[in-house]
Amino acid sequence: MAPQRATLLQVAQRAGVSRSTASFVLAGRHQDMRISEDARQRVLRAAQELDYRPNLMARSLRTKITKTIALVSDTIASDPYAGRVIQGSLAAAVARGHLLFIGETEGDPVIEEKLIADFLDRQVDAFLYASMFTRHVRVPKLLRDRPVVLLNCLGRSTRPGHHAVIPDEMTAGVDAARTLLEAGHRGGIHLVGHPSGGVFAARERLAGIKEGLGEAGARLAGTIDCDWWPHSAYEAVGRALAEGLELRALICLNDRIALGAYQAVGEAGLAIPDDVSVLSFDDSELAAWLRPQLTSIGLPHYRLGWQAVETLLGPSAPPVVQRVPMPVARRGSVAKPRCE
Amino acid sequence: MAPQRATLLQVAQRAGVSRSTASFVLAGRHQDMRISEDARQRVLRAAQELDYRPNLMARSLRTKITKTIALVSDTIASDPYAGRVIQGSLAAAVARGHLLFIGETEGDPVIEEKLIADFLDRQVDAFLYASMFTRHVRVPKLLRDRPVVLLNCLGRSTRPGHHAVIPDEMTAGVDAARTLLEAGHRGGIHLVGHPSGGVFAARERLAGIKEGLGEAGARLAGTIDCDWWPHSAYEAVGRALAEGLELRALICLNDRIALGAYQAVGEAGLAIPDDVSVLSFDDSELAAWLRPQLTSIGLPHYRLGWQAVETLLGPSAPPVVQRVPMPVARRGSVAKPRCE
Repeated sequence: MAPQRATLLQVAQRAGVSRSTASFVLAGRHQDMRISEDARQRVLRAAQELDYRPNLMARSLRTKITKTIALVSDTIASDPYAGRVIQGSLAAAVARGHLLFIGETEGDPVIEEKLIADFLDRQVDAFLYASMFTRHVRVPKLLRDRPVVLLNCLGRSTRPGHHAVIPDEMTAGVDAARTLLEAGHRGGIHLVGHPSGGVFAARERLAGIKEGLGEAGARLAGTIDCDWWPHSAYEAVGRALAEGLELRALICLNDRIALGAYQAVGEAGLAIPDDVSVLSFDDSELAAWLRPQLTSIGLPHYRLGWQAVETLLGPSAPPVVQRVPMPVARRGSVAKPRCE
Repeated sequence: MAPQRATLLQVAQRAGVSRSTASFVLAGRHQDMRISEDARQRVLRAAQELDYRPNLMARSLRTKITKTIALVSDTIASDPYAGRVIQGSLAAAVARGHLLFIGETEGDPVIEEKLIADFLDRQVDAFLYASMFTRHVRVPKLLRDRPVVLLNCLGRSTRPGHHAVIPDEMTAGVDAARTLLEAGHRGGIHLVGHPSGGVFAARERLAGIKEGLGEAGARLAGTIDCDWWPHSAYEAVGRALAEGLELRALICLNDRIALGAYQAVGEAGLAIPDDVSVLSFDDSELAAWLRPQLTSIGLPHYRLGWQAVETLLGPSAPPVVQRVPMPVARRGSVAKPRCE
């Protein structure tokens, strides 16, 4: 069904040179091989006229380089907020002349092993090993001695075996605290979410928040415990308000939690930001859609993908953990606290 | 850096057979070639012991089949709502033993041509040509005589040159109308959005809504014109309410518009669904986060991707346009209208 592609031999015949002369010209090696400018021009013209494209697969059998990388992830391809990881990875790969395979494992080690073996069968040069949530991972055995960068995850061992690119959650927590402090908040600052347990981002954000508040001699007044979804946050914040908790500022662990907090605060007849300031993490699209727009500290998805590919394809260096800054998007949901 | 892979010759030597005998055994052709069961067992054992994997790239030079497909899209990889197109495509590709390349063109024909040429250089077997918004496209010249399925887009010619898989927007419009009619609505039904102009989904949805209402002798009371974003919808619906328009039911062209409508209705002191019913299209995550939860007719992203790959890799058939049903997610935002 596909049109027949021109061969190197056809190009050589049309140009009136040998197959190897044509090959050297097209590989840019005419100077090494002392090929005349006239012959070079004839080869280039013939290649153009025949719409010749080198068979990269045949070439890769000799050079062992296919210029393809694979993004192996748990569910990152289908996470609505992580599409920009793919976009950043793609852009950096294309900028360096590489193409990107993508594969999802759903976290299943059997699927993962099969998928990686399939990529290796196609002689993929290098791998991004990615996670939807920042977490510690065990790098699959098949990848251990290959070029791999961990994207939004960290190896389990303390000795860094691979480069890793993760968001700088700890500094983001410090920035959250400072944003409220700068607006004049000192008391009634509550965390909304579930910071204990296994979620890496939550732990790091909380540590940063405590550090940032501590710098000014302030501290969290309490935690309103809920899971990562709007409805749970709506109920938890609603209960806290009904119990008469003095809520001056809410630091929500993500934008979905902030949406639930907005709903509860609105229903209680209070105004954001005049009665309660709200600040959040993720800076998803939702943040700009709320009324008032939500101040949120962004997950740098595009840059994570871009930087992971740059690290993968760039000059080799001893493996380190790179922490990508999380920018503060200042909008209308934080204001100075009402006077007593 | 990568470990040396075992060659076919090493497998043959370990098994004490010729290279071609080993090759025939591993290709499952021992019966054609009258290879003894004993030799076959030795080859299989040697392959296992050496962790031999066939070099698919070398094989593909002979068979011209690489078992890879490429998803070439404008910006679908980075659209937060279309990640599930990728997930559906991936799942169907893997189920048929194929791997998926992904590439974005940002709608630029020069980038597109380069990208497709790069995929062809890697002997990609077949292509999904995808669009973020459903629309008519010109299939790139490089793809015209190859296996291609259009994903969420349609060819420009009336003679169908390629299979196309798109959402059934027209029927979704009919379903929107029927959902309101079944709840008892007849008057005060307004469309919110911008149905004229070039957006395929908007045109088809509107045509379906008119048809559905017409079946019951009803009609749209009017259109509240706004663009596809919450803030624009908030302002337009707010103005309509301030002007005293009788809004009984709002059909919003997407969930973001519905969010803006919720904000305006809430600010006017009206209740959803008791005062105003709201219904929408997309069924994005947002729909279930709103209070009350939003009744919305879903874009079947996963199924679009799945079905496009099934069509691409399945038995060949004359090209048709496949319209994938859009399911109605009934939630709490539609109720019977208040009595006068």
